[in-house]
Amino acid sequence: MTQIGIIGSQGRMGQAIAQAIAEAGETLGGGVDRDGDASAITAACDVLIDFSSPAALEANLDAALAANLPIVIGTTGLEERHHWLIDEAARTIPVLQTGNTSLGVTLLAHLVREAASRLGEDWDIEVVETHHRMKVDAPSGTALLLGEAAAKGREVALEDKAVRGRDGITGSREAGTIGIAALRGGTVAGDHTVHFLADNERLALSHMAENRSIFAKGAVRAAQWIVGKGAGRYTMPEVLGL
Amino acid sequence: MTQIGIIGSQGRMGQAIAQAIAEAGETLGGGVDRDGDASAITAACDVLIDFSSPAALEANLDAALAANLPIVIGTTGLEERHHWLIDEAARTIPVLQTGNTSLGVTLLAHLVREAASRLGEDWDIEVVETHHRMKVDAPSGTALLLGEAAAKGREVALEDKAVRGRDGITGSREAGTIGIAALRGGTVAGDHTVHFLADNERLALSHMAENRSIFAKGAVRAAQWIVGKGAGRYTMPEVLGL
Amino acid sequence: MTQIGIIGSQGRMGQAIAQAIAEAGETLGGGVDRDGDASAITAACDVLIDFSSPAALEANLDAALAANLPIVIGTTGLEERHHWLIDEAARTIPVLQTGNTSLGVTLLAHLVREAASRLGEDWDIEVVETHHRMKVDAPSGTALLLGEAAAKGREVALEDKAVRGRDGITGSREAGTIGIAALRGGTVAGDHTVHFLADNERLALSHMAENRSIFAKGAVRAAQWIVGKGAGRYTMPEVLGL
Amino acid sequence: MTQIGIIGSQGRMGQAIAQAIAEAGETLGGGVDRDGDASAITAACDVLIDFSSPAALEANLDAALAANLPIVIGTTGLEERHHWLIDEAARTIPVLQTGNTSLGVTLLAHLVREAASRLGEDWDIEVVETHHRMKVDAPSGTALLLGEAAAKGREVALEDKAVRGRDGITGSREAGTIGIAALRGGTVAGDHTVHFLADNERLALSHMAENRSIFAKGAVRAAQWIVGKGAGRYTMPEVLGL
Repeated sequence: MTQIGIIGSQGRMGQAIAQAIAEAGETLGGGVDRDGDASAITAACDVLIDFSSPAALEANLDAALAANLPIVIGTTGLEERHHWLIDEAARTIPVLQTGNTSLGVTLLAHLVREAASRLGEDWDIEVVETHHRMKVDAPSGTALLLGEAAAKGREVALEDKAVRGRDGITGSREAGTIGIAALRGGTVAGDHTVHFLADNERLALSHMAENRSIFAKGAVRAAQWIVGKGAGRYTMPEVLGL
Repeated sequence: MTQIGIIGSQGRMGQAIAQAIAEAGETLGGGVDRDGDASAITAACDVLIDFSSPAALEANLDAALAANLPIVIGTTGLEERHHWLIDEAARTIPVLQTGNTSLGVTLLAHLVREAASRLGEDWDIEVVETHHRMKVDAPSGTALLLGEAAAKGREVALEDKAVRGRDGITGSREAGTIGIAALRGGTVAGDHTVHFLADNERLALSHMAENRSIFAKGAVRAAQWIVGKGAGRYTMPEVLGL
Repeated sequence: MTQIGIIGSQGRMGQAIAQAIAEAGETLGGGVDRDGDASAITAACDVLIDFSSPAALEANLDAALAANLPIVIGTTGLEERHHWLIDEAARTIPVLQTGNTSLGVTLLAHLVREAASRLGEDWDIEVVETHHRMKVDAPSGTALLLGEAAAKGREVALEDKAVRGRDGITGSREAGTIGIAALRGGTVAGDHTVHFLADNERLALSHMAENRSIFAKGAVRAAQWIVGKGAGRYTMPEVLGL
Repeated sequence: MTQIGIIGSQGRMGQAIAQAIAEAGETLGGGVDRDGDASAITAACDVLIDFSSPAALEANLDAALAANLPIVIGTTGLEERHHWLIDEAARTIPVLQTGNTSLGVTLLAHLVREAASRLGEDWDIEVVETHHRMKVDAPSGTALLLGEAAAKGREVALEDKAVRGRDGITGSREAGTIGIAALRGGTVAGDHTVHFLADNERLALSHMAENRSIFAKGAVRAAQWIVGKGAGRYTMPEVLGL
C-alpha cells in the first residue's frame, strides 16, 4: 500500500485527491495546505502530490529532494523558471509534471497525434471545447494541449497554424491550419472534440469529463506509477505506457 | 401538376431545383439563366423560383408582376432596397423570400425559438456550425438565423447579445448572451447545433444537411404551397404551418 | 416562502430534494422516511413531495386529503390501481404525478411532439439513450416517454410502432416505425437523443443530465407551482406552461 | 501513371471507382462487368480492383494470376472457401482483400484497437452505428469490424463479448462486454461511433461517411499502393502504414 502525501490538501483538488487515494486502496500519508511546510509530512510518505501554487513549488521540491521522494506536480500557472527548478530536481528524484492528470485526456492526445501523423493535410483539423460559464479564459489549456498533439503529429508548430475565434470574412480555409473554438455555458466540467474533416468523410475524437474527480484519480494513478522509478522527469503518457 | 419556372436555371442551385421539380412530380415550366429575361417563361408557368442574383431581382419581380405569378426568392446577398422592392411587389402578388429554404432548418428555428421562450436566462445559449473549407464567411447565415430565433424567443435583439469568436481572457460568461462559433473543414454541407446549457443539464437541437439537394426540395415545396395564395409576403415557417 | 414536506426523505432523491428546497429559497416543512406516516408533517407544510414507494401511496394521498394539501408524486413503478387512487384524490386536491421531474426532459418531450407533428413519415424517428452500467432495464422510462411524445405528434400508438433492439436480418426500415436503442456504460446519469432522419437531412433533439440533482430541482419547482391550484390532476408540461 | 482495371465496372461502386481513378490522376486500364471475363483487360492493366461478386472471385483470381497482376478485392459476402482461394493466390501475387476500403474507417479501427488495449475493463465499450433506411441487416459490417478492433485490443474474441440489441430486463452491465446498437433512417451513408465509458469520463471515436465516394477513393489508393509489392496477402491498415 502506497503512502501518498498531498500538498494543497485543503483545496478543491486536494480534497478530491484524498478521496481518490481511499478509492484506490492506498493510504493518505499526510497533507499540508498550500502554504504549509511539505517537509512535515515526508517521513510518512512514499510519494507526494502537489496541487498547491507556483510560489510554493521551490520549497516543495526541496522537501521532496531532502526526503528523496518522487513527486507528482499538477499545479498550473507554472513559468519558465519553475520548469527549470523541476528539471534540476529531476536529476535527483523522479518528477512528473502535467497540466492535465486525466487518463482519458492523456489517451485522447495520444490518439490525436497518431491520427494527425497518419492523415495528410487534406484532412482539416478543428478542435472545439465546452466549459462551464465561470471559466474566464478561452480556449482551454486542454484544447491547446490537443491542438499541440495534432501539430506534433504533423511536425508543425501549433502557434504557426492555430486559427482561434474564427469570425467575419475569413476567406476559404487555409490548408494545414488547426482551428480552435470555445463554447461556454452551464456547469460543463469539460468536453473536448478534435475533428478531422476530409472530402466526404470525417473523424471525430472526443473526451467528456462528467466532473472533476477524474483529475484526482489520474493524479493518484501517476503517484502509484512513479514510486520506484529512477530520477528523471516523466509525463502522463508514460503512466499509460504510451 | 404545377408548372414551375426557374430563374438562374444554369447555376448549381438551378440544376438541383430542376431535379427536385421532377422528384416532386411537378413540371418544369421553363428556365432562364441568371442574366436571362424571366418574362420569356412566365406564360408557361404557375409560379417562379428565383435563385439568380440581387442585380436581377427588380426585373424578375417585374416579370412576375406582369404575369401575375407568385414567386419564391432564394437569392442571397439582398440589401435593404431589395426588401423594399419585394414588399412593394407583395402588395400585388404572393412572394416568399428566405435565406434558407430547407424544411429541416425552418423547423429547427421554430423549435429553438420555442425552447428559448420557455427556458430562463439560467440556460446559456451557444450556437455552433460547421461548413466546408471553401466557405469564405463565418458564422453562416443559418447560424445567425438560429441565433435570431433564440433571441426572438427571449424577446431580445441578437446584435445586443451575440458573442462571436470567443478567444483570450474573456471573463466569466455574461448571462443572457448568445455565443456563436464556426468550424470549417472538408466538404461539410452544413451542420448546425444550438446548445442550451443549464446547471447540471443540457439540451442540444441540431440539423445536419448531407448535401445541398434539401435546399432545392424546400424551394419546390414552397412553390407548390404559394400557388393560389393571395397577394402578400410569406415566410418558410408558414409553408410548414408553423 | 413555501413550506415543503418530503415523503421518502432519507432516500437518495429525498436528500437531493432537501438540498433543492434550500437552493430554491424555500423551507423544508418536514420529512418522513418512506415507511413513515405523512400525516405527522402535514400541519407544517404547504405542499408534499412524495418519492417513497407504491405501497405507501394510498396512505400518503390520505394524509394529503386529510390536510387538504397539494402533492407532487415522483414515485416510480406505479400500477393501474395507483393511478385510480390518484385520480380519485385529484377530485379534492391538486395532484401532479410524473415519471420524470426534469424540466429539460419535459421541454424536450414537448419539442419532440411538435417536430413529429410537423414532419411526415418520410422523416424516420430513432430514439437512443445512454445510462450508467448499473441500470438493469432497457430502454429507459424516459426514452419511452420521448417515443410516446413522438407517437402522439403523429397520432399513433407507440406500442404499434416501436422497434426495440434491432439486430440481425431486419429487412429495410418500415415507414412510420419508431426505433429505440439503449447504450450502457460508465456513470452516465442519462443522455437521450431523438433523431429525425429524412432524405439528405437530419434533425437531432438531445438532453443530457450531468447528475441527478436536476430531478430534485424539477420536483421542487413543481411543488412551488402547484400551491394555490384548484383540485385536479396536473402534469410537468403544465409547470413549464407548455 | 498506374493503369487500373475494374471488375464490376457497371455497378454503383464500379462507376464510383472509375471517377476516383480519374480524380487520383491515374488511368482506367479497362473494365468488365460483374459477369465479364477479367482476362480481357489484364494486358492493359498494372493492377485490378474487384467489386463484382463472390461467384466470380475464382475466375478473377485466375485472370490476375495468369497475368501476374496485383489485385484489390472489395467484394462482400465472401465465405471461408473464398478466403482459401485468396490465400492460395497470395502465394504468387499481391492480394489485398477488405470489407471496408475507407481510409477513415481503417484509421478509426486502428485507434479503437489502440484505445481498447490501453484502457482497462473499467472502461465499458459500446459501438453504435446509423445507416439509411434501405439497409437490410444490423449491425453493419463496419460496426462488427470496429467491435473486433476493440476485442483485439483487449485480447478477447468479439463473439464471446458482444451484446447486440439490448432490450428488456437486462440486469446491470457485465464487465468486459462490448455493446453494439444500430439505428436506421433517412439516407445516412454510414455513421459509426465507439464509446469508451468509465467512471466520470468518456471517450468517443467516430467516423462519418457523407456519401459512398470514399470507398472508391480508398480502393484506388490501395491499388496504387499494392503495385510493385511482392506476393502476399495485404490489409488496408498496411496501406496507411499502420
